[in-house]
Amino acid sequence: MNELLNVGEFLDAAAAKIDPAVWCYFEGGAEDEVTLRENLAAFSRWQLRPRMLVDVGEINLETTLLGATVSMPLGIAPFALQRLLDPGAERATTCAAATAGALAVVPTLTSYRHAELQAAADGPRWLQLYVQTDRARTLDHLAEARETGYTAVALTVDLPLIGRRERDLRLGFAIPPEIPLHYGTLVDVDPTLTWRDLEWIRAATDLPLVLKGIVTREDTVLAAEHGVDGIWVSNHGGRQLDGVAPPIDALPEVVEAADGRCEVYVDGGFRRGSDVVKALALGARAAFVARPIAAGLAVDGEAGVSRVLELLRDEIALALGLLGCTSPEQVSRAHIQRALS
Amino acid sequence: MNELLNVGEFLDAAAAKIDPAVWCYFEGGAEDEVTLRENLAAFSRWQLRPRMLVDVGEINLETTLLGATVSMPLGIAPFALQRLLDPGAERATTCAAATAGALAVVPTLTSYRHAELQAAADGPRWLQLYVQTDRARTLDHLAEARETGYTAVALTVDLPLIGRRERDLRLGFAIPPEIPLHYGTLVDVDPTLTWRDLEWIRAATDLPLVLKGIVTREDTVLAAEHGVDGIWVSNHGGRQLDGVAPPIDALPEVVEAADGRCEVYVDGGFRRGSDVVKALALGARAAFVARPIAAGLAVDGEAGVSRVLELLRDEIALALGLLGCTSPEQVSRAHIQRALS
Amino acid sequence: MNELLNVGEFLDAAAAKIDPAVWCYFEGGAEDEVTLRENLAAFSRWQLRPRMLVDVGEINLETTLLGATVSMPLGIAPFALQRLLDPGAERATTCAAATAGALAVVPTLTSYRHAELQAAADGPRWLQLYVQTDRARTLDHLAEARETGYTAVALTVDLPLIGRRERDLRLGFAIPPEIPLHYGTLVDVDPTLTWRDLEWIRAATDLPLVLKGIVTREDTVLAAEHGVDGIWVSNHGGRQLDGVAPPIDALPEVVEAADGRCEVYVDGGFRRGSDVVKALALGARAAFVARPIAAGLAVDGEAGVSRVLELLRDEIALALGLLGCTSPEQVSRAHIQRALS
Amino acid sequence: MNELLNVGEFLDAAAAKIDPAVWCYFEGGAEDEVTLRENLAAFSRWQLRPRMLVDVGEINLETTLLGATVSMPLGIAPFALQRLLDPGAERATTCAAATAGALAVVPTLTSYRHAELQAAADGPRWLQLYVQTDRARTLDHLAEARETGYTAVALTVDLPLIGRRERDLRLGFAIPPEIPLHYGTLVDVDPTLTWRDLEWIRAATDLPLVLKGIVTREDTVLAAEHGVDGIWVSNHGGRQLDGVAPPIDALPEVVEAADGRCEVYVDGGFRRGSDVVKALALGARAAFVARPIAAGLAVDGEAGVSRVLELLRDEIALALGLLGCTSPEQVSRAHIQRALS
Repeated sequence: MNELLNVGEFLDAAAAKIDPAVWCYFEGGAEDEVTLRENLAAFSRWQLRPRMLVDVGEINLETTLLGATVSMPLGIAPFALQRLLDPGAERATTCAAATAGALAVVPTLTSYRHAELQAAADGPRWLQLYVQTDRARTLDHLAEARETGYTAVALTVDLPLIGRRERDLRLGFAIPPEIPLHYGTLVDVDPTLTWRDLEWIRAATDLPLVLKGIVTREDTVLAAEHGVDGIWVSNHGGRQLDGVAPPIDALPEVVEAADGRCEVYVDGGFRRGSDVVKALALGARAAFVARPIAAGLAVDGEAGVSRVLELLRDEIALALGLLGCTSPEQVSRAHIQRALS
Repeated sequence: MNELLNVGEFLDAAAAKIDPAVWCYFEGGAEDEVTLRENLAAFSRWQLRPRMLVDVGEINLETTLLGATVSMPLGIAPFALQRLLDPGAERATTCAAATAGALAVVPTLTSYRHAELQAAADGPRWLQLYVQTDRARTLDHLAEARETGYTAVALTVDLPLIGRRERDLRLGFAIPPEIPLHYGTLVDVDPTLTWRDLEWIRAATDLPLVLKGIVTREDTVLAAEHGVDGIWVSNHGGRQLDGVAPPIDALPEVVEAADGRCEVYVDGGFRRGSDVVKALALGARAAFVARPIAAGLAVDGEAGVSRVLELLRDEIALALGLLGCTSPEQVSRAHIQRALS
Repeated sequence: MNELLNVGEFLDAAAAKIDPAVWCYFEGGAEDEVTLRENLAAFSRWQLRPRMLVDVGEINLETTLLGATVSMPLGIAPFALQRLLDPGAERATTCAAATAGALAVVPTLTSYRHAELQAAADGPRWLQLYVQTDRARTLDHLAEARETGYTAVALTVDLPLIGRRERDLRLGFAIPPEIPLHYGTLVDVDPTLTWRDLEWIRAATDLPLVLKGIVTREDTVLAAEHGVDGIWVSNHGGRQLDGVAPPIDALPEVVEAADGRCEVYVDGGFRRGSDVVKALALGARAAFVARPIAAGLAVDGEAGVSRVLELLRDEIALALGLLGCTSPEQVSRAHIQRALS
Repeated sequence: MNELLNVGEFLDAAAAKIDPAVWCYFEGGAEDEVTLRENLAAFSRWQLRPRMLVDVGEINLETTLLGATVSMPLGIAPFALQRLLDPGAERATTCAAATAGALAVVPTLTSYRHAELQAAADGPRWLQLYVQTDRARTLDHLAEARETGYTAVALTVDLPLIGRRERDLRLGFAIPPEIPLHYGTLVDVDPTLTWRDLEWIRAATDLPLVLKGIVTREDTVLAAEHGVDGIWVSNHGGRQLDGVAPPIDALPEVVEAADGRCEVYVDGGFRRGSDVVKALALGARAAFVARPIAAGLAVDGEAGVSRVLELLRDEIALALGLLGCTSPEQVSRAHIQRALS
């Protein structure tokens, strides 16, 4: 593993190691995968504007997310079925995050119980929530999350229906029945959820609420008006509606519409520290990664995830320093521009 | 056939099955095929803006075209010489459309008589019309259409001359003499047809009139002033003048110029449900497909066409739901944007 | 030859037939050949706006160039050393042009004497002029041109120095000494020629004067102020300064700056009739081609050139008709637009 | 060597000759090398606007840099570890520059002592300075530079930290211990250097001061306010922060912000004389090259560097002449434009 120099090489190593009929689930996107590809390509059309002759002798990546301190502006995005890649699964990713001081967002489709994760890892955790058609099950889920130390709920709003992922269909991917899913499944996600249901969630838990999957200014305004605490710009890694803007391109309009009323996060296509720094420059408080973490998990379990986090942390610090900044807070809109077309 | 996951795979299967010297006719475009390629590529430069937290528990694709109800905003575009792909030919495509509740537009170059199609299929049908140099023949054709249940005439206006399709020339494609063409041929299309002749058509039939092949605001204004009922934005699938804008890019100016005075349809390069939804967002009332239908017909006759329509219907429904809409009418200009360049 | 369907296929056939160490001279461009490639690629970023329901039963390509009638808005650009491709050389190209009723522009570097060409071909001819350092030789040349029926002089102004064509250097191309060059050579072109020398040319001949190689509005204004009769937008086929705009992109600013004070022509990358029609739409009175003619000459001498002219004439007529025009004069700025970026 | 026609071929020859584990250091860039590639690609999106009928019989490339006359507006950029390519190393490159009358910028990481270079080469030299953490060492370095005939100091400001160059990591590149580095190392560069330290440098030397590595208008304004004599637009050849604008694209904003208060230079991706002329047109006083020089050095030591300089000088002169200019001073903003997108 030590010879893997960057996230891209981790992804290649994972693809070489894991059964293609399994890896397809983690790697693939919806339909023609236009959005999957654009999520990556979009970064190169944003350029950093580095400032020189700034004392960057000490760089501190610490920041806060909804008031809690984390060691860097990068967290682990939730992704399902981690058990398919390594038996450690969500326990491994959560522990690696805790060791790194990074935020882990635990998926509804975890094969570990939340108490097990709490016992294993003493770090900041958010719960990713899919509201199930059986609402009582979701209420139980929220209660259990409250009891097991989660500090926020990230409600996924971009999966009222399941995107058409043809790699899975082609290779016959199916969730193995032996994987326990304690808190819900994709097929039972409630497609009728609306803005009014946010009040129901608010009534069910006093945890801060983040909406994951917003990509427009219109929904940002609605979210702010509904008092959400955070907006997570995402197109679900290109796995839902194909033909949506890359999150890094959608970020500016969301940040502008949020107008400081809530924190803004982003995921989708982040592979380098400089990608994270671009997100900071466009107004995100943090970025999240899933596939890079899946690759680390596949390559070497918890140690692999730790190594991926370490690589990205080092790249973020380097990019920050070369940009002429010593902390995430110093990165501003003046540090980024569109490439000339 | 069941392993074919999408329209693209149907096209590949058709290309593998049908004699290249025949398939070239259906697949190819004019000259350098710039427009043929751009028709497809243009879709990825339009991005959907999905809205979240909308109840999409029930999605209804029904809409009306010139007042008649159809099951979805996608119809079968007319294309000639279907007999070359399957003996069922226009009967198969028309029946598949009827079964799906979709609109079928029957070509002038059908090898079935209109009465045969009427007898076989009880669904909405429009007649695609090429005005022949022998105008009497066209009058007879219009009269026969009126008697056989057609509900509108789609006059093709972008073929005063036949485009130069070099694939056909290279492979020596020629229309086999045993294919009966009862109502006209391409070489007899009248190149002198003008706006004044619309009055002559109006006098010959009381069916609603659609102009197929308009791509400019200027012609849209003329069409509206001449009282046409529908405008069909099309560049004839890239088979006529090479170097014309993709229909999805020409659509906005036509919709704006039409200004609600007539319905607007579009064809050209549609391969995915999300393509159709993009057309709706830009103001089209429906999209039409020809090559995907040709592929279905080639692969498995009527059943193949039915499967293609089913795939597209499912994709449209999914795209609609993921966009946060439950019907075609809800899709608006606010649901689409140009990609950042 | 009859199986060659278009100019591109003629070019391929020529490349396959002619010694690479010779063909490199005709095919190549300067340095990295960025301009050579862009000259071709630029056409696809301009889109035609076809108008429908226009009577195109009769299409007439005739136009006038400096008052003389030609059969189409396409002429043969001058190119040197035609003898390397076919013994007929300039006689073959000039005769083919005359047969087609098209304008031929005869190069200074012809291996035939002007009187021989006059005797062989009874068609419109312009003389392409390189002013030699030995000005007396140029005066003789102009006098001979006047006596041998030329109707205009196209002074090449973009070759004060010879562009660096690395294909030639790589393959060791050199002008064979047995080729007679009666009127001048490239190495003797006078690099000190200025606007003031136009008066000297005007004094030496009463033939209309065209400047070949203008690409800016600034030089267009100067040309018009100096009373030239025509401006020929060209970057010498990408053979001089690499990194210059494609002529089709430079055309609009030249046309605008000329403001009707002189005719405007264009060459560079024309391969299709629709390319010529785009030039007309942007305000050119005619387009010129060299490499397509060289290919025809290489493939089958005069007959090959005739066939290339015939193919292009047919394509122009078809493009004109499909655009909704019946003559070059009808093509307007409203018939073209930039592609969406 | 004589068969190498241009810088690109020199680079290929060097890559073929030098051990890949060594050449990687010279060839590679940071991380994904987006900037490395864009530095090259950016030139083709700027187009030259050549003017015709200008007397270019005599072209003189001479110009001045900070008041000193040089034979052309192209100099040798500093690059480290030249000894890895040829034993002549910095002595070879400095001598070749002197022979050509071009400016050589000698790197802090030279393996020759400055006095040796002074003795060997009688040409204009600037010192490239990395301020070391041990400031006394830098003071000594500046004093030695003053005594050995340097006429300016180019302070590198874009390497407070060392960029992540993965080619080196992959191939295990390390600086051989036998190479003497008398004046400093990369790992000892002081990351705490700020604008205030410019005063300290000013106090330590009366040589003119150039800042190398500026890419923004903001830093340009600061530099001008701090009275620097020159600004060198550079992203360190794509070796530091990946994702920065190509220097040729950043040049206009720097030139505008400098507003004539100091000279502006540029490096990054220059491979052709026309690239240099584009830089002049955008307001640079000179361009610098490093990899082309490294390639010349690798191919044939001092003679190779001389040949590269000769090739580029000839290309610059040719480009200048074809642009209608006879000296660098004549090239203006009117000679360049963005390509149409």
